[in-house]
Amino acid sequence: AEKAKPKRLSYEERGALAKNEALKRLYQTMVEKKSNLSVAADVTSATELLQIVDKVGPHICCLKTHVDILDTWNDEIAASLVDLAQKHNFVIFEDRKFADIGNTVVSQYSSGVYKISEWSDIVNAHIVPGPGIVDGLKQVGLGKKKGLLLLAEMSSAGTMAKGSYTEETVKIAEENPDFVIGFISVNPNSWAKKCKDGSLVHMTPGIKLQRGGDGLGQQYNDPKSAISRGSDILIVGRGVYRAEDPKLAAQEYQKAGWEAYLSEL
Amino acid sequence: AEKAKPKRLSYEERGALAKNEALKRLYQTMVEKKSNLSVAADVTSATELLQIVDKVGPHICCLKTHVDILDTWNDEIAASLVDLAQKHNFVIFEDRKFADIGNTVVSQYSSGVYKISEWSDIVNAHIVPGPGIVDGLKQVGLGKKKGLLLLAEMSSAGTMAKGSYTEETVKIAEENPDFVIGFISVNPNSWAKKCKDGSLVHMTPGIKLQRGGDGLGQQYNDPKSAISRGSDILIVGRGVYRAEDPKLAAQEYQKAGWEAYLSEL
Repeated sequence: AEKAKPKRLSYEERGALAKNEALKRLYQTMVEKKSNLSVAADVTSATELLQIVDKVGPHICCLKTHVDILDTWNDEIAASLVDLAQKHNFVIFEDRKFADIGNTVVSQYSSGVYKISEWSDIVNAHIVPGPGIVDGLKQVGLGKKKGLLLLAEMSSAGTMAKGSYTEETVKIAEENPDFVIGFISVNPNSWAKKCKDGSLVHMTPGIKLQRGGDGLGQQYNDPKSAISRGSDILIVGRGVYRAEDPKLAAQEYQKAGWEAYLSEL
Repeated sequence: AEKAKPKRLSYEERGALAKNEALKRLYQTMVEKKSNLSVAADVTSATELLQIVDKVGPHICCLKTHVDILDTWNDEIAASLVDLAQKHNFVIFEDRKFADIGNTVVSQYSSGVYKISEWSDIVNAHIVPGPGIVDGLKQVGLGKKKGLLLLAEMSSAGTMAKGSYTEETVKIAEENPDFVIGFISVNPNSWAKKCKDGSLVHMTPGIKLQRGGDGLGQQYNDPKSAISRGSDILIVGRGVYRAEDPKLAAQEYQKAGWEAYLSEL
C-alpha cells in the first residue's frame, strides 16, 4: 500500500518563509484570489494579448508572456500590461529563458527594445552557462525587487534538464535565496526534497485538461496530476488562449487547480 | 613525446562536404577572405553597431549579433546589416541562443519585432528542451537556406554544457545534417571525433589575445590555443569592439587566426 503523503505547507505558510519580495507578492496574490493558475497567452497580436489578459485576469495569479513573439512592442503596450496587472492583481512573468553568459544577460534583461526588467516581475533562466547567468540577472533585477525562476525541468520530450542538471539548479537556487524564487518543474516531488528552502515555488508548463502533445515535442499534463507531483502553479497556454471562450476556460482551470491544491493540504 | 596531430581538412575541403547552403557559403567566404574571424559587436547603439561593422567588415567571415540588446530596431537597420554583409562578404549569425520548446521557437525565430529569420543566415540553439527545438527552427529556416549551430560547450565558468550533454548535441546534429551546420565549441578536439560528419563547423566564443575573465563568469582564450583545440572560427567580442581602433584590432585577430589555422594543415 502507498504511504500517506506528508501534508504540504499552504501557500500562506510558504509566503511567510519567502526571502524575496516578488515571491511574497506572488503567494499573497494566490491566496487572495484562490488561484494557482498562470496563463500563457502566446498570441502574436499585441492587441489580442491585451484583450485576452483583460478577460482571464480575474482568474490568474500570474501572466506568462513571450514578448518576442508579438507583432509590435512599445512603452504603451508595456504600460497597458502593468495596468492590467494592477487592475486584476497578478504578477507578470516574462518567459525569456535567458541562456547566455552574465555580461550578455545584463543587457538582454535591462536594455534592447523590450526593457524586460522594467515591466516584468519575474523572469527565468537556464543554468547551461553556469552560475554567472544568475549573477548577471541579479545585478539588474535585485534592486528592482524582481525574482528569477530557474529551469529545473522542461515539459518537452527528450529534455536534457534532468538528473544532475536538475540538482545543479537546486544548488544555484540555494546559493541565491535573495533572488531565485523557484523553478520551472515537471515532477518536483521526485527531486525537490534536496532543496532545503521550503519557500521556493514550482511552476509547471504544458498543462491541459486533455492530455497529448503538439507534434513539436510538447507533452501535456492535467492539473490534478501536476499538483500531486508537487507543482504549485499551473501554466496553461493553448488550453486557455485557443479556447472558444478563454475566460470560461481560465475559470475552469482555476477551479481545477485550486481544488487539487486543497486536496493536498 | 607528444604524438604528431593528424592534419586537418582545409576549409575548402570542408566546404565541399557541407550539406547546407549557409555552411557552404560560410566556408567559401573564409577561403576568399582568408579569415576565420567572427566579430561580436555587442554595443547597444544600433548606429554604433553599423559603424563598427563597416570598419571591421573587410576582416571577418561572420558577424555575430545580439539584436535584443540594441536600443532600437526596425526594417531599415536590418536592411543596412544585410547591405553591409553583401558589401564586405560575410554571413550574419544572430546569437539568439534559442532555448524553448519547438512551438515557441517557431514564433521567436520568424516573428516578433526582430523577425530574425529574415536577415540572419545563422542562429544557434541550446538542446535543453530536447530535439523538438531543432524541428521547430528547421520548420522556419530550412526553406530559407539558413543554418543552425548547437551549443555543445560554452566559454563561461561552471557551464553545464559538457560530457553527455555535449555528446547529445553531436547526436542531434547528425540527425539533422540538412539544417545543423555545427557547434559552439571550446575544446572540440576532446569530443568531436564522435562526430562523423567532417563538414560541421566549430565556432568558439571568448577569444582574446589577453587571457583573463570579466567578473561575470566569462573566461578568455587566445586565438592560437583555440585553433589548436579544434576551433574553426574565432569569435572576438570586447577584444575588437572595445579596442581603441576596432578595424586595426580585427586585422590583428584575422592574421592571428589565419596563421594558427595554416599551421594546423
